[in-house]
Amino acid sequence: MRKKLIDISWEDFQALPINDKVPYLSQADGIPYHTLFAQQFDLELLERLGTLANSIRMIAKARSGMDFLQQLISHKRAMLYFSQPSSRTFLSFYSACQILGMPIGEVRDPAISSEFKGESREDSVRTFSSYFDLIIMRSPQKGLAEHMSWVLSNTDRPIPVINAGSGHDQHPTQALLDIYTLQRSFERVGGLRDRTVVMVGDLARGRTVRSLSQLLTNYPNIRQIFVAPPVFQIGEDIQKILTAKGVDFELTSDFHSVLPESDAVYMTRIQDEWDDETHQSRTVDTSGFKFGLRELDMIKPQTVILHPLPRRDEIAREVDRDPRAMYWRQMRNGMWIRSALIALTFGCENRILEFYRANV
Amino acid sequence: MRKKLIDISWEDFQALPINDKVPYLSQADGIPYHTLFAQQFDLELLERLGTLANSIRMIAKARSGMDFLQQLISHKRAMLYFSQPSSRTFLSFYSACQILGMPIGEVRDPAISSEFKGESREDSVRTFSSYFDLIIMRSPQKGLAEHMSWVLSNTDRPIPVINAGSGHDQHPTQALLDIYTLQRSFERVGGLRDRTVVMVGDLARGRTVRSLSQLLTNYPNIRQIFVAPPVFQIGEDIQKILTAKGVDFELTSDFHSVLPESDAVYMTRIQDEWDDETHQSRTVDTSGFKFGLRELDMIKPQTVILHPLPRRDEIAREVDRDPRAMYWRQMRNGMWIRSALIALTFGCENRILEFYRANV
Amino acid sequence: MRKKLIDISWEDFQALPINDKVPYLSQADGIPYHTLFAQQFDLELLERLGTLANSIRMIAKARSGMDFLQQLISHKRAMLYFSQPSSRTFLSFYSACQILGMPIGEVRDPAISSEFKGESREDSVRTFSSYFDLIIMRSPQKGLAEHMSWVLSNTDRPIPVINAGSGHDQHPTQALLDIYTLQRSFERVGGLRDRTVVMVGDLARGRTVRSLSQLLTNYPNIRQIFVAPPVFQIGEDIQKILTAKGVDFELTSDFHSVLPESDAVYMTRIQDEWDDETHQSRTVDTSGFKFGLRELDMIKPQTVILHPLPRRDEIAREVDRDPRAMYWRQMRNGMWIRSALIALTFGCENRILEFYRANV
Repeated sequence: MRKKLIDISWEDFQALPINDKVPYLSQADGIPYHTLFAQQFDLELLERLGTLANSIRMIAKARSGMDFLQQLISHKRAMLYFSQPSSRTFLSFYSACQILGMPIGEVRDPAISSEFKGESREDSVRTFSSYFDLIIMRSPQKGLAEHMSWVLSNTDRPIPVINAGSGHDQHPTQALLDIYTLQRSFERVGGLRDRTVVMVGDLARGRTVRSLSQLLTNYPNIRQIFVAPPVFQIGEDIQKILTAKGVDFELTSDFHSVLPESDAVYMTRIQDEWDDETHQSRTVDTSGFKFGLRELDMIKPQTVILHPLPRRDEIAREVDRDPRAMYWRQMRNGMWIRSALIALTFGCENRILEFYRANV
Repeated sequence: MRKKLIDISWEDFQALPINDKVPYLSQADGIPYHTLFAQQFDLELLERLGTLANSIRMIAKARSGMDFLQQLISHKRAMLYFSQPSSRTFLSFYSACQILGMPIGEVRDPAISSEFKGESREDSVRTFSSYFDLIIMRSPQKGLAEHMSWVLSNTDRPIPVINAGSGHDQHPTQALLDIYTLQRSFERVGGLRDRTVVMVGDLARGRTVRSLSQLLTNYPNIRQIFVAPPVFQIGEDIQKILTAKGVDFELTSDFHSVLPESDAVYMTRIQDEWDDETHQSRTVDTSGFKFGLRELDMIKPQTVILHPLPRRDEIAREVDRDPRAMYWRQMRNGMWIRSALIALTFGCENRILEFYRANV
Repeated sequence: MRKKLIDISWEDFQALPINDKVPYLSQADGIPYHTLFAQQFDLELLERLGTLANSIRMIAKARSGMDFLQQLISHKRAMLYFSQPSSRTFLSFYSACQILGMPIGEVRDPAISSEFKGESREDSVRTFSSYFDLIIMRSPQKGLAEHMSWVLSNTDRPIPVINAGSGHDQHPTQALLDIYTLQRSFERVGGLRDRTVVMVGDLARGRTVRSLSQLLTNYPNIRQIFVAPPVFQIGEDIQKILTAKGVDFELTSDFHSVLPESDAVYMTRIQDEWDDETHQSRTVDTSGFKFGLRELDMIKPQTVILHPLPRRDEIAREVDRDPRAMYWRQMRNGMWIRSALIALTFGCENRILEFYRANV
């Protein structure tokens, strides 16, 4: 893996539009060195990742396959720096590293780090990273992963950074697993094209839908329907992007009216942890944006139901056993797509594809 | 390992007596798929486990043996879900998994899980389990391990559940390690039969003695003596079971009178964390239920002293160096018997016994 | 590794001067069994350790080298008992164990251990250690590592103890990494001899300088200069030791005056967590004891700048990119020297040196 330096100042780098940052984050062949933004992934990369994740998933079914995978990157060690609680994403990345044989170190609670001694966060993260070969970081602090990418790139020991969620902002691997789940859901019926994807819930504040919506623009003829109470509708910034790209999209608060035409229904929970003093979540009636047995009767036999989890009551428990309920598989997909991303970053793609062709 | 479904409703399953639940928890050959209750283990299983634990213990003494063990289940990963504090049981299971080469993930403090987002505990545990191949769980919530066994059995990805302690209720692997320690203690002097086992302390609330007492009924001619202040005596439910099985047992509060005839003395601490508002522990005189140098003089040269640990002052520190003090070895036995249980669950028994015969 | 018993009483052992304790802590060939004190390391041991650390560091650069290292002690498991917060030292030891392939268990927060049940700390640590083959412990409690060395030495299952910092007192591996950094810094220019080492900051309370100063007395013709406000000057006990050993040393509060003659500048932060009610740190002017761009101009081209980290503002961020700034490399050196210490303890020195000669 060639070490890539971000050879401009932090101020200059930070001021760039995301698309102009991408080259600084990429290896010579265009695959990510640092993974910070969902926008780093175009159609070709998304398909490569999906193929790689599929291969890893199939290889892992056999003991000999697991043995192969577990020695792939066993000489490199990963640091999980999670200063924001998240067992789900943490364990998913943890498992991905284990599948690839990477020994793991972790920092989870900054209160038990030495930050209390007055050290800057930048020094802390640089310290932790200095023992490891990859840093996967989740932080409530917007832009920390980006800043650390720049900091580490300008040391004599740069290592890749993967953003595992930064505040309200980016969570690129969640977007990747959502796309991967849609790829898998339609792989035997023509692929992810010419579909209607319905996104439901707190679209204003849920970063997963915002990222997913943008990534979907890479795929041909995907109609996007956003279903939410007006106060939680998808942001105008996203609408502008969709319009600029000529995407067919629609906003509505009438959930039932769009169910019959949907090919995928992506449910999300109300993010009331971001409520301001007007407590939007309590004053808005969200009862019409839930998926139960009645809604199950309204969708097509092939339509898939997704949810980034955790859920509250957006999806009734009775729906879980329906074969169209993809959200548990979707979660497990996160482990596979993260394995694929790490393997890609560390240059293992070809070895995996060759093993797959020879053995599976 | 054949996947076993619990193909009845949760309400029906829950209502069954433990003995009728056992078949739902067992693999085709009768060994446990899920380990929830001490009652799942009959004499034959206890002996198989003990033999397997002995084999693992002897194999582990050599470097080549550890290399063999560490590749046995290295392709499967274990989740330790411990929502109740317990370094002891946690590290014992952790070590058992490491001995068998299983990569481990852990969730220890539910406060840093995403349960705060309003997710049900059932969804949380299912999420965590979805990344792993075995879940070992300890919880203050009675019946959670049982419920999760049922839940996971009814998904398309069932995995084994091992109960590592559920509230006031069951702690089957503690009972297994106690039996294993007795097996080892008497293996050169005729085995675990025709013995007098004295159990001392808080027998009303300590679950270890309640489980041990029942498991001991599997062995021929074991006399059980329960020594406690009346308020902490063994429950009537246990007494009824012993009577029904024709076990010779006795209740007393005169510790010294029974020491000379004892073959094993099992000490326990007062479980004052279960005190109600009458604060039984403070009002009862427990000074006559401690083991010190004086008691050491009253037991036979072959009698063994056990304690599930942690201890307070039930056993004086000076007793530690006496060769009859088995409680430190007993703790380490926990690691071996848990290794054996996991190896048995994952179908590794024969390979271990063959390696033992060929190499040790 | 021969098991070494400390075959005198705790009272007698504790009362010995450190030099007289060393034989009880050493293996037959004089290398440490338990590592408790910086004073256990003489010039020969320091050089052996440095050579071993260099070898491990070079071997680790190649995939085949990492594969070699990771099987060296993979059959032994390490316990990290850190009851005092320290991500830095923790991760450094954690990484060292991973490099040598040792599976790791950890106890970090005593609040989630079973100590709440009234167990003594001695029983707790003995419990945890009973599952492992090495215990690395950090504790706010002075002398705990020493006591546990004695306790474990007197069981039927002694294991090595490495002190990873005990309160205000000893932190031997920090001293080893400081020496190693100086060894490396001068290895191409004649080695660590005939140098002037300047130590700056809170010398009264920082244990790193106190240990470093003593270890430096092993090396020929090292002049030591202590730069601090009078209230934070190096203790008289250290001065007496230096005088007794005939070391050339000097105390001053004029930082700039000694910079031109320095070969190494060791900066430290003010340890205000040890302030008493007079709040020394707030009333003393420490502005003259910081290293910035101006100080960079005052040192020689080969002079190295060290800091044990974490730093506050003792060293300006702008200094980081100067090639003389060694403190980030110094931190990483901690991982290598700790790997070397563990490898030495477990008798792997020769195998590593042979691999190095054959392959690097």
